[in-house]
Amino acid sequence: MTEAEFIAALRRLPLHPAARGLNDDTALLDAGPLVVTTDTLVEGVHFLPTDPAQDVAWKLVATNLSDLAAKGAKPEGILLNYPLGDDAWDRAFLEGLADVLTSFDTRIIGGDTVTLPPNAPRILTVTAFGSDAAAPARNGARGGDALYVTGTIGDAGAGLAIALGKDGPPELLAAYRRPQPRLADGRILAPKVHAMMDVSDGLLIDAARMARASNLAVTIDLARIPLSDSYRAFSGDRLAAATAGDDYQLLFAAPQDFVTDAARIGTFSTGSGLTLHDSGRPFPLPPSLGYEHAPRG
Amino acid sequence: MTEAEFIAALRRLPLHPAARGLNDDTALLDAGPLVVTTDTLVEGVHFLPTDPAQDVAWKLVATNLSDLAAKGAKPEGILLNYPLGDDAWDRAFLEGLADVLTSFDTRIIGGDTVTLPPNAPRILTVTAFGSDAAAPARNGARGGDALYVTGTIGDAGAGLAIALGKDGPPELLAAYRRPQPRLADGRILAPKVHAMMDVSDGLLIDAARMARASNLAVTIDLARIPLSDSYRAFSGDRLAAATAGDDYQLLFAAPQDFVTDAARIGTFSTGSGLTLHDSGRPFPLPPSLGYEHAPRG
Repeated sequence: MTEAEFIAALRRLPLHPAARGLNDDTALLDAGPLVVTTDTLVEGVHFLPTDPAQDVAWKLVATNLSDLAAKGAKPEGILLNYPLGDDAWDRAFLEGLADVLTSFDTRIIGGDTVTLPPNAPRILTVTAFGSDAAAPARNGARGGDALYVTGTIGDAGAGLAIALGKDGPPELLAAYRRPQPRLADGRILAPKVHAMMDVSDGLLIDAARMARASNLAVTIDLARIPLSDSYRAFSGDRLAAATAGDDYQLLFAAPQDFVTDAARIGTFSTGSGLTLHDSGRPFPLPPSLGYEHAPRG
Repeated sequence: MTEAEFIAALRRLPLHPAARGLNDDTALLDAGPLVVTTDTLVEGVHFLPTDPAQDVAWKLVATNLSDLAAKGAKPEGILLNYPLGDDAWDRAFLEGLADVLTSFDTRIIGGDTVTLPPNAPRILTVTAFGSDAAAPARNGARGGDALYVTGTIGDAGAGLAIALGKDGPPELLAAYRRPQPRLADGRILAPKVHAMMDVSDGLLIDAARMARASNLAVTIDLARIPLSDSYRAFSGDRLAAATAGDDYQLLFAAPQDFVTDAARIGTFSTGSGLTLHDSGRPFPLPPSLGYEHAPRG
């Protein structure tokens, strides 16, 4: 697909007024204070070469919207930095892009297209803008707060195993390929909670990060981590669930008596570090708490 | 360099308040209406594997600031999507980043770091935010307007030839590797001109785009294209200058009697397409007007 064809296809998707019809080099955004987040996905690192292009588009946008959800923001739109190339892949990507934009009422603001050298892995970036955010930071947890998480944990990790060839049900594969950013929950929770972030790298590592940012210790009880029926049938392994990434649930700190559907899975206290329990009894920390971005260079 | 080390290094650069110390997943930007632009540079496509990392950082930021310049915007800051990897390259990149940020009074707002598979070409994205823009579009030229361009044209194209091994002076190489976005000119021009854009892909192709967006024809006289003394000594080829990219000068439409230091190089009229003259005599269009992004795929 040529750049002109790709941009023409983007023009048929929901366009933000800031995009000015994608006829200029810049967008003009006037939506009040903005939450801004950006994520880059790399083929072979963040998604599999065998993942359908529709699902890569979905995941690329959904992971960014998940960061907006954690701030309680309303999605305004996205910038897309896209490597043109394989015609069929480009068209399939645009289908998935249309799906995710309409599903979450998000629009195209602008972007850039590039051509990659032959055999280079695809690298895709989305930058998302949200408005009207309460924007709790990740460092606002207070000693005595409980730690809560929305939804269920581990489904996406099981889905990754399924994408790699293991047998398992489609709803777990979908949890990996088509994560659902918790935008509605975020809008309700953000003005009320003390700290919030999304679970992208793994529940344990992300909870440890919230505790560290807040200068507190956190204790998590594995037995309280919410699992789906599908995940229980698939493996039921709570430690695997707690260290798998890509869940895109919301993790937040709020008082112990906070009224919520989210699961209360732990407690913040003075000190530092992460402690695990299993049904109230101490449980050893695993060697890895989740996905670490950093290569040792 | 690890992600933590890289982010620690970014924290020592000028940080925008919106970055909240780079301690969160999102930035909070509250600077009034914003101009937003994003550019991705690909190793082997937009820069050479042999280009110094300092200069790649400079160019990555400068090309985005050039788009802000064309809207008359004041730079607020940037998001950086960066592939971690080679320690020496990362450190050199950070040096160049510090240079360009301080040179143009621009700050870090946020970003993302990723790890690439082995031997993947580097792909880097910057998204830049500008405030207080007059924001002339590229489609506002009027019949009878003159076409103007700031600075001199062709220096960066000569610099690319020098980077590839040809003999030539350092100032031409610097024009390719360290382009100077015309931010001050843009601030002065933007409220007064009818249309403006930066010259990134080549003077002829970009002028043709402005004419097409404005539903007008444009005639350019090659003899009026401003060349530097260095370029005249290097080759003096006006057609090569007019079709080389990476100049990052400002191209704008304004009345014939507009008072400016910029060179008046052409005229808009009813109709469509680009016509070339050389000292008033018709001159044939070259097969390529400049750099086209689109692969025929």
